[in-house]
Amino acid sequence: MDILPEILNRRSIRKYKSTSVTDEQISDLILAASLAPSGSNKQPWDFIVVKSKEMKEKICELDHNQKWMLQAPVFIVCVGKSTYRKDDSMERTIRDSAIAITHILLQAQHMGLATCWTGWYEQDEMRNILGLTDKDYVTGIIIVGYADENPNARPRRKATYTEI
Amino acid sequence: MDILPEILNRRSIRKYKSTSVTDEQISDLILAASLAPSGSNKQPWDFIVVKSKEMKEKICELDHNQKWMLQAPVFIVCVGKSTYRKDDSMERTIRDSAIAITHILLQAQHMGLATCWTGWYEQDEMRNILGLTDKDYVTGIIIVGYADENPNARPRRKATYTEI
Repeated sequence: MDILPEILNRRSIRKYKSTSVTDEQISDLILAASLAPSGSNKQPWDFIVVKSKEMKEKICELDHNQKWMLQAPVFIVCVGKSTYRKDDSMERTIRDSAIAITHILLQAQHMGLATCWTGWYEQDEMRNILGLTDKDYVTGIIIVGYADENPNARPRRKATYTEI
Repeated sequence: MDILPEILNRRSIRKYKSTSVTDEQISDLILAASLAPSGSNKQPWDFIVVKSKEMKEKICELDHNQKWMLQAPVFIVCVGKSTYRKDDSMERTIRDSAIAITHILLQAQHMGLATCWTGWYEQDEMRNILGLTDKDYVTGIIIVGYADENPNARPRRKATYTEI
């Protein structure tokens, strides 16, 4: 068994040091996201990097007021853009933007950064403060910084499959 | 710039050698998937490993009859299970199962295996031949094997973000 270390060691971190994250680090995270595969290579995602105290506080409040978020220096909002002209446009957009976010989580782990993918908000409220439309889907708000805790892995269902 | 090699080097491969993939390799892929984060740690996913010629042919036919798929020894069907009791249950299920699939793609790359995430089918038709219900979402059918091509990276949008 040789699991990719970034997959094996990633945790959802909810306690952060005040250490900042550089613009260069943020660019590498966004670059990793941009390399995600997507249906018909549409890359239906946009990223908003949140650093201002005021915006972090507004977002935190809508994201179930999880105060621990505010310790981290940066949030990355990943917005799925439903550009498809089919009925399942939003489903495909959510799928593709989730792939891009997963790249951010694993790239961050690779760089020694910690993350937590949060999503405990109402879409309409979050769209509203971010100036988005109902064709946009806020697939995740990713908290990024340096871990100030070292939690064990959360329990997992047994990794099984059926064969046909 | 130090992008995780598995992210940098992964390609969607559409030409495969006939070399088989072992059960041990498949188990490692499913284990990597099981380590994905998910909302409230619900892990709303199941995996069906397809090896039989008959089932591969049926799936291929519904997946826009992309004949190249049949070269590969294994398909992994990833099924999102909408177990949430909220209106956005299906959205969350698609999101979470897409994270798990992304782990499979990158773990496969880590192991020297090639993949292609396919999704060019009607949900109802694919659910039907797999014996699934309308609470299930076939988030992806992942083709797995050894690459018999070495394509360049597909073009990408510039990796940009806005800051607030």
